[in-house]
Amino acid sequence: MNKYGRKILADVDGYTPGEQPREGGFVKLNTNENPYPPSPKVLEAIQTMDMADLRKYPDPMATALRRACARCYGVPGEDWVVVGNGMDEILAMALRAFVDPGDTIVAAYPTYTLYEVLCRLHGCSLNYIPLDDDFQLTPEFYAARGRLCFLTRPNAPTGVAYPREEVKRFCDAFKGIVLIDEAYVDFGDDSCMDFPEQFDNVIVTRTFSKSYGLAGLRIGTAVARPELIREFVKIKDSYNLNTFSQAAGLAAIEDQDYMKMRTAQIRASRARLRDALLDMGFLVPESSSNFLLARWNGTPSAAALFEALREHHVLVRYFPQPRLKNALRISIGTDEECDRLIDALRDIITR
Amino acid sequence: MNKYGRKILADVDGYTPGEQPREGGFVKLNTNENPYPPSPKVLEAIQTMDMADLRKYPDPMATALRRACARCYGVPGEDWVVVGNGMDEILAMALRAFVDPGDTIVAAYPTYTLYEVLCRLHGCSLNYIPLDDDFQLTPEFYAARGRLCFLTRPNAPTGVAYPREEVKRFCDAFKGIVLIDEAYVDFGDDSCMDFPEQFDNVIVTRTFSKSYGLAGLRIGTAVARPELIREFVKIKDSYNLNTFSQAAGLAAIEDQDYMKMRTAQIRASRARLRDALLDMGFLVPESSSNFLLARWNGTPSAAALFEALREHHVLVRYFPQPRLKNALRISIGTDEECDRLIDALRDIITR
Repeated sequence: MNKYGRKILADVDGYTPGEQPREGGFVKLNTNENPYPPSPKVLEAIQTMDMADLRKYPDPMATALRRACARCYGVPGEDWVVVGNGMDEILAMALRAFVDPGDTIVAAYPTYTLYEVLCRLHGCSLNYIPLDDDFQLTPEFYAARGRLCFLTRPNAPTGVAYPREEVKRFCDAFKGIVLIDEAYVDFGDDSCMDFPEQFDNVIVTRTFSKSYGLAGLRIGTAVARPELIREFVKIKDSYNLNTFSQAAGLAAIEDQDYMKMRTAQIRASRARLRDALLDMGFLVPESSSNFLLARWNGTPSAAALFEALREHHVLVRYFPQPRLKNALRISIGTDEECDRLIDALRDIITR
Repeated sequence: MNKYGRKILADVDGYTPGEQPREGGFVKLNTNENPYPPSPKVLEAIQTMDMADLRKYPDPMATALRRACARCYGVPGEDWVVVGNGMDEILAMALRAFVDPGDTIVAAYPTYTLYEVLCRLHGCSLNYIPLDDDFQLTPEFYAARGRLCFLTRPNAPTGVAYPREEVKRFCDAFKGIVLIDEAYVDFGDDSCMDFPEQFDNVIVTRTFSKSYGLAGLRIGTAVARPELIREFVKIKDSYNLNTFSQAAGLAAIEDQDYMKMRTAQIRASRARLRDALLDMGFLVPESSSNFLLARWNGTPSAAALFEALREHHVLVRYFPQPRLKNALRISIGTDEECDRLIDALRDIITR
C-alpha cells in the first residue's frame, strides 16, 4: 500500500469490468451490450449539434433530458429525475447521498458485483441474503435491516425478475431506502417505475447502456420523490453529464419505437438461444434481461467452457464465485452471433 | 432534511456553478470558458467516429488519451496519468483516494470554492490559510499540516501564480499529498508538471475545459507517480470517461499549435482588458489565467456593478465572501466581448 493511501482501500482491487478486446474478430457476448446500433435519431442529433458550443459548460441540471425522461417514465415532472455519468455513478451517488460510512447495506446474493465494490469504497458493510435455488427472494430477505437495499430487477447475472407484488411487499417492510436497479427492465414484461409515487423510500434507476444501445455515452438516471432527488443534487458533480450525452440521450429516449423494435428482436433471439442451450443440457432460468445465465453440470467444467469459447473467439462472462462457478453468463447478440456461440459450444462439448 | 438523508448533508447546498443563461444575447464572462471554439481536429475526430460503436462500453482506462497526455506533459508514461469526467471528478476522486472522513485538508484563502464543498461532502474539515494582501502564500501556509493540500496555481479567482520555487519548498515541507491544481496553467508562463517526478506526494491536475475550449465534454486529468495513480484507479467508476470525450480529448491534446495560438490571443486580450480596467481605477493583480480579479473600492459597490452589468447583458462573477466582496471576476473573452464589458462599465460608473 502507498504511504499516502487510505487504509480502507489497502486490499481493494476495484470492480473488474468485462473484457473489451481492442482487436476485432471476437463475438462479444460478455458485457450485456446491445448488438444493435443506437437509434438513427441519435446520429442526427449529434450531426446537427453546434461543435462551437462544446467550449461552454453543459446544462448542469440536464433539464431537457430529465424532462423527456419524466415523460417517458410517467412520473409527475423533471424534479423526480436526476441523471448521472452512467448508472455506475448513480449507484455511487446513492451511497454518498443516503449512507454513512459504517452503515449496513442489504442485497440479495448473487447479484451485480459492483454493489460490493461500492460498499467497500464507501466504508460500509454489505449484508448479502442468499436467494433460493430458483434465484427468488426468501423470507430472510424481507426481515433484513439496513440503511439502503440494492434490489436488482431483473436481477443480474440471473436474469430473473422477482414478482412485482413481492417487491412492493418488501418496499413496505424495509425501513431504509430501497434502490430498485432496473438496468435491464426494457427486456422484461413490467417495471416498478410507479413505486416512487407510492413509497417515500423508493429510488428506481435506469440506464441508456442496454436497451438504448448507448453504453459508450454513459447515461444513467434515478427516479424518486423530489425530496430524495434533492439529496442527489447536493452531492453530484455540477456538470456530471457532458453536452454530447445530454443531446444523444434526449434523441434516444424520444425514439421509443426504435428501442421497442430492438428489444423485441433481442427477446426473440433470447428465446431462440435459450431453447438451444436447454437442448444441449444447460439449465437456464427464464430471463427478463438481455442475457442468460446458463448453468452447466457436465464436462468440461463451466470455467473450461469459458476458456475454450475464448479460443473460439467467443467471449462470455464467467464469475468464479459461490453459486456462479458452474455457470456462464451469455449476453444476447444477434441471431448470427448466438449461432456462433452455439456452434462453438457444440464443438467444445462433443470434442 | 429528508428523513432518509445523511446528517452530514443537512445544511449542504452544493457548489453553485456560474450562471448559464439559455437565452442568447449575453456576453458571458462569468465561467472562465474559452471564447473560441475547440480545434477543428476535434470536429474531424467526432465526424469520423463510428456511431455504431456507441453501443459498446468505452475503454475503461482511456489508454490512447492517457498516452497522448503523458507525451504532452513530458512524464514517463501513461501509468502516470488518470482521466476523469472533468476536473471536478478528479478533485472528488483525490479526496476519496487519499483522505479519510475526519481528516484535515489545507488550502489558501481565497481560492476555488469547490474545494470547500467537496470537503463537506466527504466529511473532512478544511483549514483555510489566508493569503497576504498581494494574494501570495504566507509563512503560516508553509507550517500547515493536513492529509492533503489543494494548491491552486495559477490561483482562482485571483489569477496569481505563486513562484515555482515557493511551491517546491512547500511540497518539500508538507507531510501529506499536495494537489497542484493547474486548471489555468496554459495561460501562464510556467508549470509544476515536473514535480511528480521529484516528489512522491505531488499530484498535478489539468482540465480540457479552459485552454482547449472543451468545457462541454468534461475532461480532467491527474498526473502523479504510478503508485498514486493506482489509488485513483481503485476508486474510479470503471467507465468514467465516455467514448466521445476520449476521442475529442485525444484530437485536442494532439493539436498543441491550435491551443497555443488561442491561449496567445487570450493573453493579448487579457493585457488589453487589464489596462482598460486599471485606467478606470480598478486594482487588478497580474493574472496568469484566463480571467482577471478586478478590485473596486469606488461607487457604486462591486455587488451593484455586478447587477448593473447583468442589466447590460454582460455576465461576470461576483463572490459575496470575505476579501472578494469588493471585486469582480471577469473571464477573458474576445476583444469585442471585452469592449462590450468596458463600455458597459463606463456607462454604469459615470452614470
